Amino acid sequence: MTWRASVLTLFPEMFPGPLGLSLAGKALRDGRWALEALDIRGFATDRHRSVDDTPFGGGAGMVMRPDVVDAALGAAIAAQPAARRIYLTPRGRLLDQALVRELAAGPGVILLCGRYEGVDQRVIEARELEEVSAGDVVLSGGEVAAILLLDACVRLLPGVMGAADSATEESHGPEGLLEYPHYTRPAEWQGRTVPEVLLSGHHAEVAKWRRARAEEATRTRRPDLWAKHLNRNAGEGGRLDGQPAAA
Amino acid sequence: MTWRASVLTLFPEMFPGPLGLSLAGKALRDGRWALEALDIRGFATDRHRSVDDTPFGGGAGMVMRPDVVDAALGAAIAAQPAARRIYLTPRGRLLDQALVRELAAGPGVILLCGRYEGVDQRVIEARELEEVSAGDVVLSGGEVAAILLLDACVRLLPGVMGAADSATEESHGPEGLLEYPHYTRPAEWQGRTVPEVLLSGHHAEVAKWRRARAEEATRTRRPDLWAKHLNRNAGEGGRLDGQPAAA
Repeated sequence: MTWRASVLTLFPEMFPGPLGLSLAGKALRDGRWALEALDIRGFATDRHRSVDDTPFGGGAGMVMRPDVVDAALGAAIAAQPAARRIYLTPRGRLLDQALVRELAAGPGVILLCGRYEGVDQRVIEARELEEVSAGDVVLSGGEVAAILLLDACVRLLPGVMGAADSATEESHGPEGLLEYPHYTRPAEWQGRTVPEVLLSGHHAEVAKWRRARAEEATRTRRPDLWAKHLNRNAGEGGRLDGQPAAA
Repeated sequence: MTWRASVLTLFPEMFPGPLGLSLAGKALRDGRWALEALDIRGFATDRHRSVDDTPFGGGAGMVMRPDVVDAALGAAIAAQPAARRIYLTPRGRLLDQALVRELAAGPGVILLCGRYEGVDQRVIEARELEEVSAGDVVLSGGEVAAILLLDACVRLLPGVMGAADSATEESHGPEGLLEYPHYTRPAEWQGRTVPEVLLSGHHAEVAKWRRARAEEATRTRRPDLWAKHLNRNAGEGGRLDGQPAAA
């Protein structure tokens, strides 16, 4: 079964966009995933094809109508009943790599992109949508968040990355650490050298140095992730320095 | 002065992409911001136009060379010496709306997009790049993160959003609360009604209800943001229930 993404949007021409190039684009052409952008406006029923209306209670902006969004969702769900149904909104849970791994392991996703002030809350509840936020920023609409989510998922699909890249040492892996810094040729550049241990050929020392740099980066740059990392290891019976406990 | 974004990338054809449509696209055509995508490969000097090499210390993947990336950065900085210089990487500080507001208030940004395992650490240090992460996920490259950052910035530029939308009540505003839920016509849909207070025409009651829903959403969905909100108010002499302190 091909992993399938249905995106409900008022701007279907934004897709595939950047997802049509590079890694995700090659995977799309190779049939490792499929993408359909459904135009929500096509489900409007009045003669003006209106998709939004003013908010009850007053205030700026417009809200997307529950009936029109529901009809679009109905079509997507009929085509893909087992897919996770996600509404991209700053009110949602934060997207993280654990959720990306879950979504990539499933049959696909239905992504609802809001515009204006957002979507009527009743259709979110009626269709039991998961509310997901791409980050603590406000976007002009859900489309850019959908592109980010899809890019993160697609690279994890089978056959998309080479086996060599298989992603165990990168940031936000199962260990919850940021990645160590990288160096390549030239060995000396503008008077700046590469850390000596990396030139030593001593694999165990290189691994130890990288682990220490990953821990240092996480501790100093992202104390929130560092606290989670320590808790996780403590919970698994590990020691607080991040090494496995002795038997 | 027009707000200006220079994006350094191996995939310049990804730009403007979704930023060429809708709100950001109209603002681009109206000259409210300018976008230049610089092809890093154009700064390679060997006959193979190589931009990357194997990592010192071994391991999977390739690392972008410091000399080539530095030459591209040099060109962008010469054209835009006052711009903030950002490298998009999961090792960076998390992008949030406060940083978006800062960037939108400045003259523009230079965004370096990594591919493969990332960029040689020496050029990040030599050029004093700010490392910024679009979220705790791993992307196929920095381009999608750059698009998200630019979408968030552009909507805040003068004249891009209508005055009516001017964004004080949305999620991640200065108060640090998630937004309240929205409702529009029809008032009854599939047996689901709109909260009665929103139909009352009583502005003070509507505002009170919305504030309570925003606080409830933040507390239940994002305890991390709720804690920050309480701290902020306490620091400003506010009471812990989020109301301003009595004089």
